[in-house]
Amino acid sequence: MVSGPSSLSLRTHTCGELNVDHVGKWVTLCGWVQYLRQDLFVILRDFSGLTQILVPQEESASKVKADLCDLTVESVIMVTGTVRKRPAGQENKMPTGEIEVLAENVEVFNVSKKLPFEIKEFVKKSESLRMQYRYLDLRSSRMQKNLRLRSQLVMKMREFLCNEHGFVDVETPTLFKRTPGGAKEFVVPSREPGLFYSLPQSPQQFKQLLMVAGVDRYFQIARCYRDEGSKPDRQPEFTQVDIEMSFVDQEGIRTLVESMLQHSWPAEKGSIQVPFQTMTYEEAMRDYGVDKPDTRFNMKLTDISDIFSSTQVEFLRSALDQPEGSIQAILVPCGALFTGRELESIKQTAKTQFGQRPLLGSLRLQCAELLESHGRPVRDPLAFHFLWVVDFPLFLPKEDEPQELESAHHPFTAPLPEDTALLFTEPHKVRGQHYDLVLNGCEIGGGSIRIHRASEQLYVLKNILKEDPSQLTHLLEALDFGAPPHGGIALGLDRLVSIIVGAASIRDVIAFPKSFRGHDLMSRAPDTVSDKDLTPYHIYVKWPTKQGGEEK
Amino acid sequence: MVSGPSSLSLRTHTCGELNVDHVGKWVTLCGWVQYLRQDLFVILRDFSGLTQILVPQEESASKVKADLCDLTVESVIMVTGTVRKRPAGQENKMPTGEIEVLAENVEVFNVSKKLPFEIKEFVKKSESLRMQYRYLDLRSSRMQKNLRLRSQLVMKMREFLCNEHGFVDVETPTLFKRTPGGAKEFVVPSREPGLFYSLPQSPQQFKQLLMVAGVDRYFQIARCYRDEGSKPDRQPEFTQVDIEMSFVDQEGIRTLVESMLQHSWPAEKGSIQVPFQTMTYEEAMRDYGVDKPDTRFNMKLTDISDIFSSTQVEFLRSALDQPEGSIQAILVPCGALFTGRELESIKQTAKTQFGQRPLLGSLRLQCAELLESHGRPVRDPLAFHFLWVVDFPLFLPKEDEPQELESAHHPFTAPLPEDTALLFTEPHKVRGQHYDLVLNGCEIGGGSIRIHRASEQLYVLKNILKEDPSQLTHLLEALDFGAPPHGGIALGLDRLVSIIVGAASIRDVIAFPKSFRGHDLMSRAPDTVSDKDLTPYHIYVKWPTKQGGEEK
Repeated sequence: MVSGPSSLSLRTHTCGELNVDHVGKWVTLCGWVQYLRQDLFVILRDFSGLTQILVPQEESASKVKADLCDLTVESVIMVTGTVRKRPAGQENKMPTGEIEVLAENVEVFNVSKKLPFEIKEFVKKSESLRMQYRYLDLRSSRMQKNLRLRSQLVMKMREFLCNEHGFVDVETPTLFKRTPGGAKEFVVPSREPGLFYSLPQSPQQFKQLLMVAGVDRYFQIARCYRDEGSKPDRQPEFTQVDIEMSFVDQEGIRTLVESMLQHSWPAEKGSIQVPFQTMTYEEAMRDYGVDKPDTRFNMKLTDISDIFSSTQVEFLRSALDQPEGSIQAILVPCGALFTGRELESIKQTAKTQFGQRPLLGSLRLQCAELLESHGRPVRDPLAFHFLWVVDFPLFLPKEDEPQELESAHHPFTAPLPEDTALLFTEPHKVRGQHYDLVLNGCEIGGGSIRIHRASEQLYVLKNILKEDPSQLTHLLEALDFGAPPHGGIALGLDRLVSIIVGAASIRDVIAFPKSFRGHDLMSRAPDTVSDKDLTPYHIYVKWPTKQGGEEK
Repeated sequence: MVSGPSSLSLRTHTCGELNVDHVGKWVTLCGWVQYLRQDLFVILRDFSGLTQILVPQEESASKVKADLCDLTVESVIMVTGTVRKRPAGQENKMPTGEIEVLAENVEVFNVSKKLPFEIKEFVKKSESLRMQYRYLDLRSSRMQKNLRLRSQLVMKMREFLCNEHGFVDVETPTLFKRTPGGAKEFVVPSREPGLFYSLPQSPQQFKQLLMVAGVDRYFQIARCYRDEGSKPDRQPEFTQVDIEMSFVDQEGIRTLVESMLQHSWPAEKGSIQVPFQTMTYEEAMRDYGVDKPDTRFNMKLTDISDIFSSTQVEFLRSALDQPEGSIQAILVPCGALFTGRELESIKQTAKTQFGQRPLLGSLRLQCAELLESHGRPVRDPLAFHFLWVVDFPLFLPKEDEPQELESAHHPFTAPLPEDTALLFTEPHKVRGQHYDLVLNGCEIGGGSIRIHRASEQLYVLKNILKEDPSQLTHLLEALDFGAPPHGGIALGLDRLVSIIVGAASIRDVIAFPKSFRGHDLMSRAPDTVSDKDLTPYHIYVKWPTKQGGEEK
């Protein structure tokens, strides 16, 4: 069987592959009419490129000529004819720019109506219009490239994991049960009254159970769900590269991920260097004021508290007098460019975010953006700076009850071996075996070595997090029946691809994304459902506009 | 970076790979204690096999000995030691049967509690117990093999589609809108009162829109959802190999699928012959009495109406007098073996299923089962008989309103070109460009060439199916903006894998399946959700035990 993109097809070649080597060949092309020129040429497009079709002008070919010249833009046709060298002076630099195809037969598959917008990249259109006619938006070469790059990246990751390192691709359920405190989980009513499935935010429990099951090495390109209401550049469903290994340590997982990214990195984006830079959480906060620093540029924080140790300037004094209070400086090269209004905006940020953790990190980024707006390059848009952030605190004070602790990431993360004893004495000081992967200042992944002993997991849940362990009985039991040491990671695929292709939004690397309100503007989902269709699920709608939550 | 299943691991080798070539090597193995023998041996297991660990008996190794001999079955350990040839006479035929490892260091990762059942294959356990402790059930070599075979099969399909034929792996949304008449779709309440997403039964609309988008060749290993309540051997979520191509005909899709299955077929299951046998729907019904015949055995139907053309036997006469009535025979070799009770059971089937379409097909299968129960082999359990069934009717009379028509498969299937004119005159006679793939009498896939012209699609929806086309506006519009001719197929992956491995149920090829009532017996999903957690979704539960649908 012939392989390649024209196997088993009505066409013999794609519109992007013909060149002088094909001159004289009898070919069949299928594609969309990009544009027509003066009844002389039809430019035919498919996913691979463009080919110039020459309209025959002889009387004997009047039918072919008429068919071609009647076409509207974006109509779909099949053309058969002979490849010719273009007359001297008519060549161009495009891959097919030296040839043309003299049409001898045409079949018109579909005549297109006038489009709501032009496909061309440079024609600006609103995002809502793009989303409403997503199938037209996807015809642009940029979106074609994005989808294909994503497909190939994932394919190479799979080859690396499956074929080279013995990973097993296991599908885990998405109809699961609500996790305790899972406020961001969509619910799915079942046919049993009052019983609901839940769409999980990640396959975390299943991947750990697969390690207990002896699967040894698991991965899945996993669909995950998170209901955060309306948030910019978040999607209610998203995809993660989900990995778990038994008999491994932090170093092993990190090396695996580095090698996987190196292996699957698109050639046209250059190569990436491994190992990636590593930084502790403490260093990241100290030098960059944030736990996901953009290391493409410097402008680190400098502690200048010493200089002001005896200051009497009131706001400095009061800062220093606070517990762990300090005075930090950011040296902004060419900061003298900043206008008064810009300096005011920096002050505003400082005021409104004062006391919030990543304030200094935000100020640093804001300064970089301002410099760039003055035409001073700070962050190289073609550079890819990967960074591991490690040694996170295992627990953080709860926002609303700071005397209580909650997991910094999730309750299954193991403590650093040297900090394990602190679990029982000063749990807030325990660092976890957690690692975040940061790319150009965006968190693109996170993982950990997990707790593999039931007694330790129970202690964390019950005594430190004060959670009811009965909801996790199955996991606690599993740890008691021979759980191996294990760990893993999850990479956010949408975000990773969007950074690689330089897209402004993850919506540009997803075929059919939802709007920021969670709507599919093309099909108009979500939609109403009749009471009759809700009956089997024993639910009804509580209309907020009516009084007292009455039935509709 | 070293590759293979022991890369980046605490172990140096797996438990299944050591042989005489390794004698003298210092190795580290990790795994589960399969069993202990007389304080002399520990049999260590991982996913790849078993290795015999020799317990050192010298005084100086008393700590190692004590650690090993205190172990319970299914405890998890790491053993370091030297590979030795087994003493003469102690070898066995297992892959590692000529060697053993003399333990010099042991690390105990986890001591297992007494299991609720033994892992060994031959120990019978109830399916509900297996499901409750699924992570233990998955440790069996049978389940390990099933999951790994599935992963490898899918990987080879991906390589075939992506690397050899230019397919693009595109993820489509699972939070979609309810399709008209989609009674089997789960609903997912959104945060907007009265608006619901729906979990789609297949990516049908999206894959067609991707063709309109010029993606050219799409595939996805797609998670699909179907709420059928309780049905044996069905799962509320399942997986299909979803494929769509532009500029292709029936022949092209069928050849692609044949080559893909041939390419990805597990070597240990023999090879499969292509092209597959093809049969029209009419032939299948005539010869086998069913549209998915098991062609591993003969016993075809024979029309013997002629012999009885002038019969006066009443039940034969009345059969012949019906429109399209006939008398059919099944020649059962060795049918004389059937007991009176068995013949009675055949009669019962005939009575209870009389007038239903696949009655004769059921009788044929029943006869085959009865013969096999008498020890007469009929269906070769190691044979794989693929069959294409084609030329299905495009429409069928509705069950409850036989004067109305409904789609035999779905409303997007194109008619056979030679039948297109009949759409406007005698639509019930139109055959569709639909093809079913049958393996050993199970339907494992189906697909079609789709309608690619808006006017034809609108006519089918409105004039033939009498459906409201407004719910499909986006698709009808898309067809009007330059839709290419296209077609595709979906294969049921769970069913396909279960037939390949000879599993009795698809639950044996799914890591964490639901029970036939749709429950996850391990985590106890679905579960209750508090009223507070339902509030953001503007729904409440209608408890059926209370009167008048009051709120709880």
